[in-house]
Amino acid sequence: MDCEFSERSLIMVPGPTNVPERVSKAMMKPMISHRGPEFRALYKGIIENLRYLFQTEGEVFVLTASGTGGVECAVSNLVNPGDKVLIPVFGLFSERMKEKIVRRGGSPLEIKLEYGEAPTADQIEQRLELEEDVKIIAIVYNETSTGVTVRDLPEIGKIAKERGLLLLVDAVSILGGDTLPVDEWNVDVCVAGSQKCLACPPGLSLISVSERAWKWIERTKRPFYYDLLTMRSFQDRWETPFTPAIPLFYALDEALKMIREEGLEKRFERHRVCSEAFYEAIEALGLEVFPKKEARSNTVIAFKRPTSVDGLEVRRLMRERYKVVIAGGAGKVRDLIFRIGCMGTISAPEVITTVSALEKALADMGYPVKDGASVEAAKRLLS
Amino acid sequence: MDCEFSERSLIMVPGPTNVPERVSKAMMKPMISHRGPEFRALYKGIIENLRYLFQTEGEVFVLTASGTGGVECAVSNLVNPGDKVLIPVFGLFSERMKEKIVRRGGSPLEIKLEYGEAPTADQIEQRLELEEDVKIIAIVYNETSTGVTVRDLPEIGKIAKERGLLLLVDAVSILGGDTLPVDEWNVDVCVAGSQKCLACPPGLSLISVSERAWKWIERTKRPFYYDLLTMRSFQDRWETPFTPAIPLFYALDEALKMIREEGLEKRFERHRVCSEAFYEAIEALGLEVFPKKEARSNTVIAFKRPTSVDGLEVRRLMRERYKVVIAGGAGKVRDLIFRIGCMGTISAPEVITTVSALEKALADMGYPVKDGASVEAAKRLLS
Repeated sequence: MDCEFSERSLIMVPGPTNVPERVSKAMMKPMISHRGPEFRALYKGIIENLRYLFQTEGEVFVLTASGTGGVECAVSNLVNPGDKVLIPVFGLFSERMKEKIVRRGGSPLEIKLEYGEAPTADQIEQRLELEEDVKIIAIVYNETSTGVTVRDLPEIGKIAKERGLLLLVDAVSILGGDTLPVDEWNVDVCVAGSQKCLACPPGLSLISVSERAWKWIERTKRPFYYDLLTMRSFQDRWETPFTPAIPLFYALDEALKMIREEGLEKRFERHRVCSEAFYEAIEALGLEVFPKKEARSNTVIAFKRPTSVDGLEVRRLMRERYKVVIAGGAGKVRDLIFRIGCMGTISAPEVITTVSALEKALADMGYPVKDGASVEAAKRLLS
Repeated sequence: MDCEFSERSLIMVPGPTNVPERVSKAMMKPMISHRGPEFRALYKGIIENLRYLFQTEGEVFVLTASGTGGVECAVSNLVNPGDKVLIPVFGLFSERMKEKIVRRGGSPLEIKLEYGEAPTADQIEQRLELEEDVKIIAIVYNETSTGVTVRDLPEIGKIAKERGLLLLVDAVSILGGDTLPVDEWNVDVCVAGSQKCLACPPGLSLISVSERAWKWIERTKRPFYYDLLTMRSFQDRWETPFTPAIPLFYALDEALKMIREEGLEKRFERHRVCSEAFYEAIEALGLEVFPKKEARSNTVIAFKRPTSVDGLEVRRLMRERYKVVIAGGAGKVRDLIFRIGCMGTISAPEVITTVSALEKALADMGYPVKDGASVEAAKRLLS
């Protein structure tokens, strides 16, 4: 991957991620009218490649907004006041999704889990047995705040289909980095962000809509900017209803071309191997991975900081002395964990540079590390 | 201005506009974490320069969204279900603003005008005499669809202040191109877009909030992504609540620096002179400017197409043969008018190239033009 390590810092937070020069340079293409033939050709190509990425025959849209805006768009198009929405809450982003449902006037039925755990299909099934009139299951596939992936998502999709419920999935920090065949898994509305596993800059969110979701969307009272029916009517002529962030569309176009060139399977495997290398290295440092083994994410690596060191200081040293930026926790585990983005351009050199910087910073602070052990552990996996 | 004319087309639609190379290149700066010191320094600089641009001591925010998203944010923060909002409707964008109020459950009190006219302070005053319990005046300062500027805005601001009403202004296509001292004119919430008179790429909207608007905002039920109170709490530490479109923030930072270097007064004067040159040239072609003289915009030039020629064909010729892209109408005057953006980098060469392309394309289609007359008319103004 053509990531630049030398002068600039390596951005290893769980989004935004390092952007390949090819993608970055695409933003320099000439400004165009969003109502002209050049834009229509650009947007058509993007949508075709997004269908490949989402593995869907359904409609896909690009919205000028952060991932959070995309999730709000999805919630606003599906949830009407009073609608019951089943939602497992197991981190900051599922908390936020619940809050969006509340602000829409929807009625969230919460399955509350410990941070670090993933909801299971059984838990969903059991709760549905107890409730009447549930309309939607809303789920965060990859909890960016805890490094947890919901491995039962395909089974949850089956449950939704059997019971005639809509399935809304926040895949902001995972789409493009791990398996998510939207049609096969019965996901009705799926939201992703440009700045995570796509290795594209932030500013766009991507939304897929299934055939059966449209009937539902038609009956909701939708806000103007987020109205998916308006987006669909403009997309018939390969336009967006409102002025799109054109340089970011150029970047997305290039990022998607790179994804097609690599192929989804190879890309997912690359993320998986790199994440395992991270987990091995973390354990070699004597640190504890935050989520349970079966719930570990391939795209967001969360682990507990040693209680003996100041987390902010470790990250400052990594950033200033070793030019690698990782994240702390978010939400209620803010001070307890570190998080690393294993996304987009992620490859062996990025993993090793990051692990090495972490090891050195910990050693600088007096935390006992066996010199080079974590890098060796990562290398074994990567070879 | 360092606009490139040679290889690429000149984009003369009313946004997005041509982007100076300096601004465009800024997008290539390294990706950074939006929770780190580099971003905080960047955002702080942007906010300081935005206060200069809006001429306000109040708070200003940057939202990752199109201008329409910014206006929706403003409406969502000010209007609660049932609130009465006085709104003059005189083009597509005021229609849209009304629609957003309706979708929020607000109660728009419409002052309906012909397209091409601007609402007056007297009309506002008279309507307010007839109504009880109005909370907000919502107004589009520059109707992008008709090329009309509301020259009575300062008087309307006085009326709002005297009556204790909030004044919400859509300035998407004018801020940075014409006078709008937000504090002096009693504008409580003002929305602008990055891609118009700022000569920055599209994808960001800019929102100012007055001191007295906050008390009102605190009582509204705000959507999650658009919540100005959340934005304000993050801005205390120079962050945005959700991942910002970092390359566009770099571009905005550079565009704002260019605005400060030029100075607002010189910038407004440049837009004014260029717009007059356009109007003179259009009249020299025997064509009719669409708005009444007192309502003509300095940033969007709207004029009737000759009934004898096909508007789409004129624009196609201009684009393909002469490399200048102008816009047709929008909304219900779609086929009746042409529109030219007189924004951002606008300067004598851009005006002359555009007028010349228009004259030639009309001549190619058999419309009787006096060779070079329109260019001469423009040049007289610009010299």
